Amino acid sequence: MTTDATGARRPFGAGPPTLTDIGEAELLRRLVEAARVEPGGGTGLVVESGDDAAVWRAPDGAEVVLSQDAIVEGEDFLRDWTDPESVGERALQVALSDLAAMGALPRLCLVTLCAPADTAAADLLGIQRGLCAAARATGCRVAGGDVSAIAGPLVVDVAVVGVVAPGRALRRDRGRPGDALVVTGTLGGAAGGLRLLSTSLDVPAPVAERWLSRQLHPLARLAEGRALAERGVACAGDLSDGLLVDVARIAGASGCGAELWLDALPCDPDLPRHLGAAWVEAALGGGEDFELVAAVSPEHLAGLLAGWPADLRPLRVVGRLDGGRGVRLRGREGGEALPLPAVLSRHFRQR
Amino acid sequence: MTTDATGARRPFGAGPPTLTDIGEAELLRRLVEAARVEPGGGTGLVVESGDDAAVWRAPDGAEVVLSQDAIVEGEDFLRDWTDPESVGERALQVALSDLAAMGALPRLCLVTLCAPADTAAADLLGIQRGLCAAARATGCRVAGGDVSAIAGPLVVDVAVVGVVAPGRALRRDRGRPGDALVVTGTLGGAAGGLRLLSTSLDVPAPVAERWLSRQLHPLARLAEGRALAERGVACAGDLSDGLLVDVARIAGASGCGAELWLDALPCDPDLPRHLGAAWVEAALGGGEDFELVAAVSPEHLAGLLAGWPADLRPLRVVGRLDGGRGVRLRGREGGEALPLPAVLSRHFRQR
Repeated sequence: MTTDATGARRPFGAGPPTLTDIGEAELLRRLVEAARVEPGGGTGLVVESGDDAAVWRAPDGAEVVLSQDAIVEGEDFLRDWTDPESVGERALQVALSDLAAMGALPRLCLVTLCAPADTAAADLLGIQRGLCAAARATGCRVAGGDVSAIAGPLVVDVAVVGVVAPGRALRRDRGRPGDALVVTGTLGGAAGGLRLLSTSLDVPAPVAERWLSRQLHPLARLAEGRALAERGVACAGDLSDGLLVDVARIAGASGCGAELWLDALPCDPDLPRHLGAAWVEAALGGGEDFELVAAVSPEHLAGLLAGWPADLRPLRVVGRLDGGRGVRLRGREGGEALPLPAVLSRHFRQR
Repeated sequence: MTTDATGARRPFGAGPPTLTDIGEAELLRRLVEAARVEPGGGTGLVVESGDDAAVWRAPDGAEVVLSQDAIVEGEDFLRDWTDPESVGERALQVALSDLAAMGALPRLCLVTLCAPADTAAADLLGIQRGLCAAARATGCRVAGGDVSAIAGPLVVDVAVVGVVAPGRALRRDRGRPGDALVVTGTLGGAAGGLRLLSTSLDVPAPVAERWLSRQLHPLARLAEGRALAERGVACAGDLSDGLLVDVARIAGASGCGAELWLDALPCDPDLPRHLGAAWVEAALGGGEDFELVAAVSPEHLAGLLAGWPADLRPLRVVGRLDGGRGVRLRGREGGEALPLPAVLSRHFRQR
């Protein structure tokens, strides 16, 4: 969030100067300044932000991993829901989730900010500050980007670059029939948060706080992704669009089918109580939990579960890849087949 | 431009299906498919588009160069001016211009496309096709990206990644007092094109064609940037925002002042005739020519000019870095000081 001189966060809506008042070039200069960190950060940056482009030397033998993700006002967030720093944090974490899903270590990011001309410069600097704070916390550095006026909503587009040991990237197409499908953490909290923000649903304060935090302050599962890759897991993806959609992607890329077991889902514990039957849709299709799903071979599964570090998000077996096609749902392993719920889009606008 | 089955280009405005009809996930799938090239393209891509992120191994010893640039409908282009493929081409070339300004060889790009929900999918695929064709022509590959609906204008945001020999990147902060300022090609054509598109200015057809081409189909000066770097030049930038602004950036980063000589500018030959006195603003401040400006030490200048390959955009000395501050304008070297023209923004909206 944007902090004032006293360090207090404040919502969108700061006064002048606006983007028009100071101009794009001056704003870009201020954003670069806000992104500057003390030298010797050890990220391998050869030419810093402020030149035409950044130059970065990959650690010897490592592979460079790249991704890009945009969040768009009105599609992914509303200004009323949040504050500038949180939007910046979220934009970075959403982009980093793709690096987590590859088992990569984040090193650099590039940020494009499109904003209406009357947006307060303080709000835009708040977005940049939130993004930079999240970057520092994950060991990556803002290496450049672009600024443009837009006659439309705020857009924060983040390209992320990371490294992974050669051949060790977690790929969607490395699953095999018989592999266990394993999920980190819990599912459905972000979808619950979205309902709190966009409907009249009312839940106790601790539940609301947890759900809103999952929706507004997601955290890429970077340590979990690297732990999977280091332990020899070859196949994983992130749960940006929900378990059903993301498992279908892994199964499709791997030339497999998949089944999921409803009773095994690590659903947020308060979801069934407050959402009723809709908890199934939220847990399977809500998306934006940004947990990881991996396909683990049967011979490695027991060792992986037994040796999983206690300080990481816990692993849970939720289904299996098989020789079929598409994704099927059962109540439990070997149980009866259940109808698939309607899959929610991750964008509230389309619901 | 978008081509129909017969290969003819057509303007924006294709019929259904729209982004809403097919959904973002399906559109992203089609965009990835449109970006797919035959395997073994030799770009060092280890994991292709379609996974969570791309993995790319830099050629041994090379440095990775990264940049990101967005073009926004209503700010950088209007749909009426152009066609989908040209928007894609332009988005890539504008981003690549930053790599040209570093002397880098482009290898990969990431593309984020934000479009109103009622945009024809064919228009979006046209943008992607134009971008991919331009990528192929410059030896770089579309390695991923994102798609989002937006309740606003089209946004095409492109992150580019390239390589440069270690220590050989052309940097803004490597100029020294006494260095000659050298420009590639001609200036002001893109600004002339913008006036044709946004005012009632009328010029002969061959002039209009040349100016519109500079505005709508810019080409990053990649070969020129590499030629400068290979010949030992250390300091350069691209002319995205116009000579005055971009020379001020180089002078500021290098801790120098600069003077420019009006009579020496390689101005588009038809600019003075058709723009009257405004040609000075167009040539110095118009921007979007995407030529390069370099600072060259006096001892290297004669050799650089004499040995410059004839198939590249010609070099022209336009001024000098000095020990002063800021940028000053003279009629010619040693001539009287002239007032600086009002600098135009690169965005027509703000004029």
